[in-house]
Amino acid sequence: MSKFWSETAKRTKPYVPGEQSNEPNILKLNTNENPYPPSPHVIEAIKEELERKLNLYPSPTVDQLREAIAGNLQLSSENVFVGNGSDEVLAFAFMAFFEPNKKIRFPAISYSFYPVYANLFGIPYEEVQLNRDFTLPADAFFQSEGGVIFPNPNAPTSVYLQLDAIKEIVENNPNQVVIVDEAYIDFASESAVTLINSYENLLVVQTMSKSRSLAGLRIGYAMGHPELIQALVRIKDSFNSYTLDRLAIAGGTAAVKDTAYFQQTTEKIVQTRDWVIENMKKRGFYVLDSQANFIFASHYNEPAEDLYVELKNSGVLVRHFSKALIDNYLRITIGTDENMQHFFKKLDEIIDSKKASTH
Amino acid sequence: MSKFWSETAKRTKPYVPGEQSNEPNILKLNTNENPYPPSPHVIEAIKEELERKLNLYPSPTVDQLREAIAGNLQLSSENVFVGNGSDEVLAFAFMAFFEPNKKIRFPAISYSFYPVYANLFGIPYEEVQLNRDFTLPADAFFQSEGGVIFPNPNAPTSVYLQLDAIKEIVENNPNQVVIVDEAYIDFASESAVTLINSYENLLVVQTMSKSRSLAGLRIGYAMGHPELIQALVRIKDSFNSYTLDRLAIAGGTAAVKDTAYFQQTTEKIVQTRDWVIENMKKRGFYVLDSQANFIFASHYNEPAEDLYVELKNSGVLVRHFSKALIDNYLRITIGTDENMQHFFKKLDEIIDSKKASTH
Repeated sequence: MSKFWSETAKRTKPYVPGEQSNEPNILKLNTNENPYPPSPHVIEAIKEELERKLNLYPSPTVDQLREAIAGNLQLSSENVFVGNGSDEVLAFAFMAFFEPNKKIRFPAISYSFYPVYANLFGIPYEEVQLNRDFTLPADAFFQSEGGVIFPNPNAPTSVYLQLDAIKEIVENNPNQVVIVDEAYIDFASESAVTLINSYENLLVVQTMSKSRSLAGLRIGYAMGHPELIQALVRIKDSFNSYTLDRLAIAGGTAAVKDTAYFQQTTEKIVQTRDWVIENMKKRGFYVLDSQANFIFASHYNEPAEDLYVELKNSGVLVRHFSKALIDNYLRITIGTDENMQHFFKKLDEIIDSKKASTH
Repeated sequence: MSKFWSETAKRTKPYVPGEQSNEPNILKLNTNENPYPPSPHVIEAIKEELERKLNLYPSPTVDQLREAIAGNLQLSSENVFVGNGSDEVLAFAFMAFFEPNKKIRFPAISYSFYPVYANLFGIPYEEVQLNRDFTLPADAFFQSEGGVIFPNPNAPTSVYLQLDAIKEIVENNPNQVVIVDEAYIDFASESAVTLINSYENLLVVQTMSKSRSLAGLRIGYAMGHPELIQALVRIKDSFNSYTLDRLAIAGGTAAVKDTAYFQQTTEKIVQTRDWVIENMKKRGFYVLDSQANFIFASHYNEPAEDLYVELKNSGVLVRHFSKALIDNYLRITIGTDENMQHFFKKLDEIIDSKKASTH
């Protein structure tokens, strides 16, 4: 800490992302990336854009990408805001809709970036305890003082909240903005995007990092009433006129337009998830009902932290959170079938050698 | 304005960037982009990266690019912070070093994003009047309450401040951070980067948008004492873990390494600038002594706003600011020799037809 740091810099408690390993033989099941490459049309579109004008600024309004997203979701481009990953979109949303003197609410077990944003912007918050089965108690979010944010499906639990419950939360916060962070929604049953034309206080945030296989390109977006979108634009235009580069705009637009590839890869991941869950249960894991591209699982006997360490030692990265109530769970990203077979091979070796050593 | 907007969203006065026209026959001399394409190595490096893992997150610490920049400038990578364009880097710097209760200082005629950041983050400010010749009065920046920021060369004036004056400003703000925004420094005589090992309160910000021909890729960076860099990292990690995408990291690194191409294109622009200034003077323009890739010029007879409009009507975009003291000036980006010949052709047609109509 230095005398030159602002009070803001001093009070922040930065987010710690999952490990990014460059070792070629590591199996990365720790940051919920998509195991499939992006659509071939994405690569093509970026190559074409490369031949154009990288020396000129990109569009500050990014109409092309906003229109593609809107078209896909039967919205108008006035309902769509785009940013440099959904983390940036969420940061702008905290600035645009939450106040330094009004407590917001989010789940106590949730995306751990929410308290980080709150500390950064000096926004007070209340953490809402989940039910014992890790479902969200909708009524605990009613009548919030400063607004509400939660992921759906929730992270790191993978548990999905039905739209009826979301409607109730939105209706019971008539003067506050409710942000539904749908990073994993494309692996779940239904998005809250269908509700935004009915509620002027609902903001839905999505990302291309998971279902569109574009974590490396940094594209997130928010959908809501045009007045909410305008507030995000005001914040962004007071922060950085051009948050998306030319290649991301071109690639993102191509990704949105390739619906067939998107459906094929997301369906494949959902299938793999289902057999992974089945096989985890056979091995004595309790697995939460997942609607995401990851599962959240706890073994009846083997401590999660030990498994995390031993999997890491055998070249498989999963995620473990040293946090009350979930410290005996592992969050495991769904890879390809081959990835998951390799995962089970290593897992079985670990469990077998533990059994052998205790007999 | 909506009842859902935060006080922050309400009070912001967003920055308005120069027009981005997609019309193919427009000559864009209005946003200080480089007329030359980026180094061929940049395109190659991006194509290679495209074959790798766009489905995986980029490095959150961006070591590869930071090391390349540090190597170029005889610094350690601990002295270097990178971000999504220098606008983002400046936004983070406002959060990291300036306080909501201490007045910062910047020039009254300067980059018009500074008051926008200040409004966004609620930081009070004093605008320092320039000297009558548009030079910066160094001593007016001494003993600031909350810190200092200014561009060097200044924008939109193009005027350069000598390092001796910068040293005095830094030494006379021993408890505050002084930010020198060097967006255009590669077209000028000497960077303040050479001073950062001597002063722990100096932050120097640069960009790849101008001299590296990469406005479309969004890469900016800051250099300073490691404790200043750590504060920027804390803010960034509380805002967005991955601000640079994989393609920008690959392309930016290649750009930094191609010193020969960089020198060749920047030298060419400086040569073009010198003959443009000469030719402007021949046509009755007063031109400030430019050390940037643009000039700031005022005609003895023709109002700047009229010239701006008529140039626009003939397909040449330059920039005009409707602001006291500079409203009779045009800011004109230096393009290729061919671009500038075309500019003079159109300018001469306009001036000739005006003369004809007044006789």
